[in-house]
Parts: sequence; structure tokens; C-alpha cells
Amino acid sequence: MHDYQAILNTIYQDTKNTEDKGVVASYIPELAHVNRDNFGIHLRTSAGETFGIGDFEKPFSIQSISKVLALAKAMSLIGEDIWKRVDVEPSGNPFNYLALIEVENGIPRNPFINAGAIVIADILVSNLKNPKADFLEYIRTLTNDQSINYNKEVANSEKLTGFKNYATANLLKSFNNLNNPVEEVLDFYFHQCAIEMTCSQLSKAFYFFSNKGSCLQNKVQITNQQVKRINALMLTCGFYDEAGEFAFEVGLPGKSGVGGGIVALLPEKFIITVWSPGLNKKGNSKLGMLALEEFTTKTKLSIF
Amino acid sequence: MHDYQAILNTIYQDTKNTEDKGVVASYIPELAHVNRDNFGIHLRTSAGETFGIGDFEKPFSIQSISKVLALAKAMSLIGEDIWKRVDVEPSGNPFNYLALIEVENGIPRNPFINAGAIVIADILVSNLKNPKADFLEYIRTLTNDQSINYNKEVANSEKLTGFKNYATANLLKSFNNLNNPVEEVLDFYFHQCAIEMTCSQLSKAFYFFSNKGSCLQNKVQITNQQVKRINALMLTCGFYDEAGEFAFEVGLPGKSGVGGGIVALLPEKFIITVWSPGLNKKGNSKLGMLALEEFTTKTKLSIF
Amino acid sequence: MHDYQAILNTIYQDTKNTEDKGVVASYIPELAHVNRDNFGIHLRTSAGETFGIGDFEKPFSIQSISKVLALAKAMSLIGEDIWKRVDVEPSGNPFNYLALIEVENGIPRNPFINAGAIVIADILVSNLKNPKADFLEYIRTLTNDQSINYNKEVANSEKLTGFKNYATANLLKSFNNLNNPVEEVLDFYFHQCAIEMTCSQLSKAFYFFSNKGSCLQNKVQITNQQVKRINALMLTCGFYDEAGEFAFEVGLPGKSGVGGGIVALLPEKFIITVWSPGLNKKGNSKLGMLALEEFTTKTKLSIF
Amino acid sequence: MHDYQAILNTIYQDTKNTEDKGVVASYIPELAHVNRDNFGIHLRTSAGETFGIGDFEKPFSIQSISKVLALAKAMSLIGEDIWKRVDVEPSGNPFNYLALIEVENGIPRNPFINAGAIVIADILVSNLKNPKADFLEYIRTLTNDQSINYNKEVANSEKLTGFKNYATANLLKSFNNLNNPVEEVLDFYFHQCAIEMTCSQLSKAFYFFSNKGSCLQNKVQITNQQVKRINALMLTCGFYDEAGEFAFEVGLPGKSGVGGGIVALLPEKFIITVWSPGLNKKGNSKLGMLALEEFTTKTKLSIF
Repeated sequence: MHDYQAILNTIYQDTKNTEDKGVVASYIPELAHVNRDNFGIHLRTSAGETFGIGDFEKPFSIQSISKVLALAKAMSLIGEDIWKRVDVEPSGNPFNYLALIEVENGIPRNPFINAGAIVIADILVSNLKNPKADFLEYIRTLTNDQSINYNKEVANSEKLTGFKNYATANLLKSFNNLNNPVEEVLDFYFHQCAIEMTCSQLSKAFYFFSNKGSCLQNKVQITNQQVKRINALMLTCGFYDEAGEFAFEVGLPGKSGVGGGIVALLPEKFIITVWSPGLNKKGNSKLGMLALEEFTTKTKLSIF
Repeated sequence: MHDYQAILNTIYQDTKNTEDKGVVASYIPELAHVNRDNFGIHLRTSAGETFGIGDFEKPFSIQSISKVLALAKAMSLIGEDIWKRVDVEPSGNPFNYLALIEVENGIPRNPFINAGAIVIADILVSNLKNPKADFLEYIRTLTNDQSINYNKEVANSEKLTGFKNYATANLLKSFNNLNNPVEEVLDFYFHQCAIEMTCSQLSKAFYFFSNKGSCLQNKVQITNQQVKRINALMLTCGFYDEAGEFAFEVGLPGKSGVGGGIVALLPEKFIITVWSPGLNKKGNSKLGMLALEEFTTKTKLSIF
Repeated sequence: MHDYQAILNTIYQDTKNTEDKGVVASYIPELAHVNRDNFGIHLRTSAGETFGIGDFEKPFSIQSISKVLALAKAMSLIGEDIWKRVDVEPSGNPFNYLALIEVENGIPRNPFINAGAIVIADILVSNLKNPKADFLEYIRTLTNDQSINYNKEVANSEKLTGFKNYATANLLKSFNNLNNPVEEVLDFYFHQCAIEMTCSQLSKAFYFFSNKGSCLQNKVQITNQQVKRINALMLTCGFYDEAGEFAFEVGLPGKSGVGGGIVALLPEKFIITVWSPGLNKKGNSKLGMLALEEFTTKTKLSIF
Repeated sequence: MHDYQAILNTIYQDTKNTEDKGVVASYIPELAHVNRDNFGIHLRTSAGETFGIGDFEKPFSIQSISKVLALAKAMSLIGEDIWKRVDVEPSGNPFNYLALIEVENGIPRNPFINAGAIVIADILVSNLKNPKADFLEYIRTLTNDQSINYNKEVANSEKLTGFKNYATANLLKSFNNLNNPVEEVLDFYFHQCAIEMTCSQLSKAFYFFSNKGSCLQNKVQITNQQVKRINALMLTCGFYDEAGEFAFEVGLPGKSGVGGGIVALLPEKFIITVWSPGLNKKGNSKLGMLALEEFTTKTKLSIF
């Protein structure tokens, strides 16, 4: 039995004074204001115990972490039909390159590169009655927490500057892989990414990926087989062009976002969420990666 | 001395009954309505003689042919500063691929691929007082013909369906290579491409490229050195991924458009314009290419 | 507790009469002679129990499966220095494409694409006294079976026709990522791939990947951490451009070869080896993939 | 009438003291020994007049310039069948990239990138009785100069270090676009590139490209149509990834080599050869490019 609190404390102390904390994302202007010294870790076991250290109760922009929750929602709505419109292969390219979409005729390589996530957003826009309200309600239900909300400034900031996402969405549209208008899909997508959550809220939200598909409120969100598939996708595609490195060094399914958050999990064991806004060159939280490497080195807990 | 009328007549007869006339462009819905049997050839010598056969007085959508006139106008406005924002190398790729823009950091390979032409459009929007009105006036002055106009249906048709061009413009914007709003630049660009002209009008408009920069009204449009450079660009980049083939088989600077038009010229000798709306697989007029090949084979007139 | 023999029997019956059995690899002429009707499955638990059905005792050409054993041997020899010369990211491209090597300056994306495996072969040639003899001895020791051998005809067949591998090795050499002569490295590499083993022998050889690094003879081959890393690499990169699909559908670390073999494993639980020489379009055994999908569906055993 | 000697003198003086003379090629070790201060210009008119300045009688390694003569010889032997095995489009990529060969199924984009030139070498090996002796004899006949020879040290130097060319040839072989053994074709190719000639000899050898196909000895080498096509290829593909720039700035068909030589010509007017071994970043002679730009600026002689 691991003493998780002691382990988190040690990792926190070992990591927090790292000199090079990486660079806070600035391509969305609103994100650039976040203090780089924020650092929090939170762990929730399947048995319901929770452990935290540092800024684990401060909300931050979850950004790409939202892609996993969006995918789970889409799978619950239309099931395996998703895979007609997006593939499940690692991209072998940084997260916003358009080339592969052209080479592969408008089918994004996986649902976690931006192109794939925009297709998933299009599916949610088609299948939810009030897309933005319903998706927020979904997150609130997963966490049993009505305080979670969109950060409208961040969403609007990206709307004004997210030219690569407009390029991507238009390219998908040109291949007939977007059913709704570009503006509508991106409005939803920018909001989805602009949800703010704390480490402890994210550990709650991702609980069902470590619990065979049932969320904290004991409601089945997706099937156990769907859970396994999303976990496989997180492992192979969850960290942009550093997915192989993460699988190799950490060995847990997980997902990062440019807000500096990372969620990782060991099926039927625990969910661990880390937040530190400074990013490494590949776009993943610098301290977050270090903390998770140390965590699996110390605990020897990994899927391999 | 060549008997141009006899040569045009022969080529016309030899070519017009070609069984496979290619496919009329349909990606802009409005263009798909054009009758594939249209076929016209027109030649104007530097000395002022003109020769025509077939539908050489019927207006058609000049589309990408307009890129040459837009480039000349931009060169007359800001000179060699253009080349900080667009390169002069052949693309080595079909005309609407985005990959190269990413690889080359937002600098389009040349001003005749769509990405490059959109940068030129941005320059015109920045430097013309009333971009659409002024550009149309420019064409009317070159040809001394006030009847030339935009086809608003075609421009609007592309505005509703030109998702790849929206993708391209947004990608350029993300690399800071577009100074005006995407919508404004593309509105101008779609109009520029939607100008309707006849073969004989195009032969007039391109006259200054075979006359050291002076147009029919004897006004200097661009310098002789600028003419040579645009002619070089037409030769190396004027026919999408078939530019090498055209240089190899025909040996004249020229520019094609998906409306089925082709203008080619021999400096200080003549301009020849061909129109037939059926396109080959590379997006160039099928009969147009055949006619120009036969023309240079028969006359042995080429720059080589 | 699963009744593995019953499960293997059912899968064998369900799968063996599949109409489209795929295409036997012919790019190595010697491989083309294998009868497509061969089909065998073998499973070995960590506890030492073994189960088999069909042709599980017939030897076949292990081909790319050998890359995992070569990597493990290289890790035992030079440790983490390997990762200066080869990366750990999925390739995002079919297995024999050279483009990425150029883009990434001679560093292959992972040790399981041919380019990466040739770098590993170069490391073994540098660090083994008698490379071919020593590597064979390594395999014989892992399996405690002196009957295992190279098929010289297959090795020579590839030596005469493996032009893409010659291209790859020369390209690596041009980037100074090959220390020994091309001919010497490829001679070793073609032999390594031309080892013949049965399903049951492969289950033995891969035992240490499910046993924290200790082989059947209880000798530590590599550390537990190295095992976890190789397992992670098998999961993310073990199936050419179908690695994501395999992780998604099967959820086990594994490695396939064009001889039609696949080895997969669940850490601390079992190794399963399948052989059927007909390949699907991505180059993996057609029946093998079907059998493993059915296996994890039936048993619900996966790392996720 | 131009006073060519005076013009060459001026250009020579203007150019020879350029501070940054570029970098002498070192990827073929033997080439690295050449003194960077060498600089010669030579011009031959169609009327037979010759003009020279500087080191125009010093032999240097013609390298890629030989590709034009090899192509002409191949066209004289098998005519248009060449174009089944190599295309005529600009490459849009630096000269030694392999990616495009794969994308285009083993058909090199043009005969002047290395891959295309190796296919042409293969054609010569198939169609000449004693390839190396016959090709040398061909050059000697064109120039009426028996002193021209291969530099065996340069040929051997490349044989030992030209790994990218081995990679290319093997890749072509894997696509069945090489009929002879790789070693044999590359031995011929490395010799072809290792011919040493002076500026004045090159002006003689290229005479037939400015004389409708008839060489100095008045013998028809290729047809006038074939001349036009090779001239077109020189213009669109003669300068690696700087072909567009050369057409744009200079406006003459030409071919450069990494030995620092450049030959350019105006059909029915003149051949001009420049040599200075320092190369710019794109692999073309630094002073050579400057000299030719100044030449066409001063004389206003170009094909456009």
C-alpha cells in the first residue's frame, strides 16, 4: 500500500523549484496572464480516497483535456459511428499541422489532434439540443459541481486569434467532414476548451475512465469497452508529438492541455491530475511531466 | 511570315472534335453551368494585327488568369517589396495544398498558387482606395473596354463554397502574412477571379507583357524588367503542377484558369488566348493545351 | 479463472475459415512459398501453463518480431545510450517510408520501423563479438532450445531484393547514424529477421517481457523499468501504421512480422503468439489480428 | 551590338572582390581542395566569336552540369521513351530529398535532380557499348578536344562517401526504375559527374543547345525540338530549389554544378560559362549567380 500523500509531498518538493519552468502559452492571449508559479497535484483512488498538494483547488483552463470528455460524450451519443469520420492512429506530427488532413482526405488521424477534436465538436453540435449548455451540464454532473463554468474571455480570445483552427475547420469542411457551419462548430469548440476546472474537479470528472465507465454518481456514462478504447487513445495520442515519450517514461493513459494541466490514470486504481502552466517545447506542462515521471518511478505503478 | 489566320483555322479544326474534352470545373457551382462545347482562339501580334476563330468573343470566367494582372498591379504599387511576402519558386504540388505553407513558415512558394495570390490580393486591398472598383477600372483601362465586369453570381458562389481558400487565408493569417481581415481579402479575391472576359479582351489585357510594359493605350504599366520577371513566373509557375509540362511542350510563358481559359505569349511577338471549359486532370483546359501545343509545333515559335 | 484452452479452441474455429485470409508477403521471394492455410495459436501464462491449437509447433520466419528481441539485447548492452540514435515516437507513416528520416535528420522515429531497427542492428554489430552467432545464441538461451536457427535462403533472398533496406541504411549512413559498413549491418539485419521459430518458442522467448525482465531460466535479461519501456514501445509502435488500431481494438503490447506472426502479452499474466501468413493491407497477419481481437473481447484482458 | 569583352571585364571586376564568396562543397572530400579564389567567365556567340576573363581555361569538376549532356545523349539514343521513366516537373524540394520519389512511385520529378539523373545514367549504361569510354568520347567529340578526361580521384571519392546517391539508386531499384545493378549505374554516374572541363570547353560542349541541335563540328546531335525541350528543362529545373529565382533574375536556360560551374545560354545567340567554386546556401556558385545577374541586367538579353 502506497502512502500517496507522502509521495505527492516529496514529488512536489522535488519538482517545484525546478529552475526552467517552461513557457506559459501565449497563442491565446488570455492564457498568457496566468502566473507561472502555480503548481498543484491531486490524486483520487478508485476507493474514493483523495490526496492533494499545492494549488490543487485553483481553477485553470483545461483546454485540450476537454477533448477526452467531449469524445466520451460523443461516444455515448452516436457510438462507433464516430470512427467513420476520425481515425485512431497517432499523428506523427505536431498538433496543428494540416498536411496530414489533406493526405488522408479529410479524415483526421485521431480525435485528440485539433482537427479530430473539431470533428467531435461538430458531432456534439449536431446531437446536443443546446450544445454549450448541455456540455457544461455534462461536466457539472460528472463532478457533481455546479460551480464549473466557461471562461468567456478565453473563449472569445481564441475566437479572435485562432486562425489555425479556422483554417483546420474550413479544410475539414472542404472535405465534407463538417456538417455544421464553421463558425458554429468553432464557437462550441472554443467554449469547450475554455472550461475552467481545478485539479480535484478534473480527478472527479475523469473518475469513470478508471471505473469501467461509471461516474462518481454511479451512473454508466459509457461501456467498459468504450472506456478501454478511450484509455488506449489517451496512451497513444494524448500528448501531441510527445505521446510516445509519455508512454515510454510514465506508462499511463493521460491527456495534457496548453493551460498546463495533465490528467493521467491507472484503470481501476487511481486518477492523478497535475497543473503547472509553463510548457515544454512540445506543448506539455514542464513540471507536470516531471512530476508524473517521478510518480511512476517511485510507485512503480503503470499499465506496463 | 506566318499566316496566323490559316494556322488558327487548322488548329481549330484539328482540335474541336477531340472526343474527350475534359471535365468542366464544378467546385464553384456557378461555373458548372458552362457549355463544354465552347471553343475559341484569338491571337494579337505586337504590330496590332488580330486573328480569331470560334467563340473568341464570348465572355468566360477568367479565374486564375486574373492572378497575373493582380500581380502586375501590385508590382506597380509597391514594387519589389512583394517578394518579402511571397517566393518565386515552382510549387511541386497541386494548386491547393496547404502543406508547403506550413513547411515554409507562411511564405507561399509563388504568386500563382492560391496562397500566393491571396497574399497579392491582401496587398491590393491595402494599397487600393476602393479595391474592387479600382481593380475593375484597371482591367477596363488595359483593354480600353468599359463593358468588362465582375460576375457577382460566380463571386458569391465561391464565397459560399470556397472552404479551401478560407482555410488558406486563415493559415496565412496565423503566420502574420495577411494584414487585412480574411473576409475582406477573400471578398476581393473571389471578385478578382470572377471577372468575365472574352479571348480577344484577354489578348488586349496581356498586351503589355509582350510590349516591354506599355499597354495598348501606350501607357507604361510596369518596367521592362518587371515584365521579364512576370513572364518568367508564368513560364515556371503558370500551370499548377503542369508548368514543367507546358514549358516542355509549348515553350511560352502563360497562365491558365479553371474557367478553361489560357493566355500565352511570345515577348515582342504575340499574345494568344484559348478558351475551352473542359479541364484535364491537372486543372488546365484540355483543348486549350492541345491547341497551344499544335500552335508551337506548327509555327516553331517559342522562347527556346 | 479463464479456461484458456477452451477459449483458444473457440477462437481457432471462429477464425480459421475466414474467407479472405489476406495475402502472403512476396517482397521477399522466399517468403512467398509459405502455405496460406497455416494457422496456429499458443499461450503461456506467467505461472508456466501452456495452451496451443493448430500449427503452433511449425516454425515460420519471425521477421520484424525479431526487432523486439534485438532491442532488448541492445538495451542490455549499452542501456539508455540507444535513445541518442533513435526516438520513441509512433511513425505516422507506413513502415518503409524514408521521408521522415530526412525530416528528422537521420534519427528514426522508433526502433520498430525498419530504419530504427537497422540502427539497433548497427549497435549489435558494434557490441557483439560474433554478431550473428551471439544473437542466435541469445535466442537459444531465452528459449532453452538449441534447434532454433537462421533460414539462410530467406536471409539471402532479402539480400538480393531488399533495395528499400539498402536505401534506408545508406540514408542513415549519410546522416552519420550508422557506424559499421552498410553491407555488414544489413547482413546481420537480414539474418536477424530470418530466424525461424514456432509459436510456442516465441511465447518462451518473450516470457521475460511479462516477467519483469527475468527469462524462463530465471536470468535477469533487462531491468523491470526497461521491460515497461519496451512494452510501451510495442503498444505505441508495434504494428506499423496500425499500431493505434491494435491498441484501440486489442489493448495489449505486441509486435507483428510480415511472416504472419504476432506476439502480444499482458504484463505478469501471459504471452500469446499467433501465426497465419496472410497479411492485411497494413502488413499485419489478417487472421492473427482477428484472433487477438476475439481473445481480448472474450477474456476482457487488456492493459486498459 | 554588345561589346562582350568589355562587359565581361566589368562584371569580373565588379564581382571578384565580393567579400562572401560562399562555401566550397565538401560533401565530396576531393572537391574541398579547390581554391575558392578561382573565378572565370567565358562567352561564345553563335557566330563563333569567343570572349573570356579570369580562370576560364582552368579545368574544374563539372558535376551536375554533366546531367544536361547525359540527357541529350540519352535522347539521341532512345528518344521520347525517356519520359516513361522520368517526369519534367520542377521538384519543389532541395536536390537530394527522397520523399518525392516515394510519393510519386519511383518516377523522379525531372532529369536534373539526382534521382532523375541516375535514371538517365541507367539508360546510358543500357544503351552504350562501353558506357564510360563512349560517354567521354561523346564529350570529346562535342568539344573537338581529346584532352578532356575523368578525374578518377573525384569519382572514387564520391564512390566512398556518396551514401545519399546509393540510397536514391536503391530506392529507384525498389520501384523497378533501374534496370542495371546499383553499383554499375553509380560507377558510371560518379564518373560522368567527375569530368573536368574549362569554361571555354563547356561553352563549346553546350554550343548545340544554342544552335538548333548541331554541334561545333556541324553534326546534328539532337533535333531542334529536343533542343527546345532540354532548354525548357534547364530553365525550370536547372538550379535545384533556386530554379525559379534564376529564371526570375537571369531569364536564361542554364545548369549549375556543385563544382561551382554554371552554363547558361540564349538560343541562337550565345553560351556563357562561369566558374567560381564557392556556393550559396542553395548549392549554386555564389559569384556565378551574381555575374550572370549582372550580365543580363547590363545586356538586357534574356528569353523573356
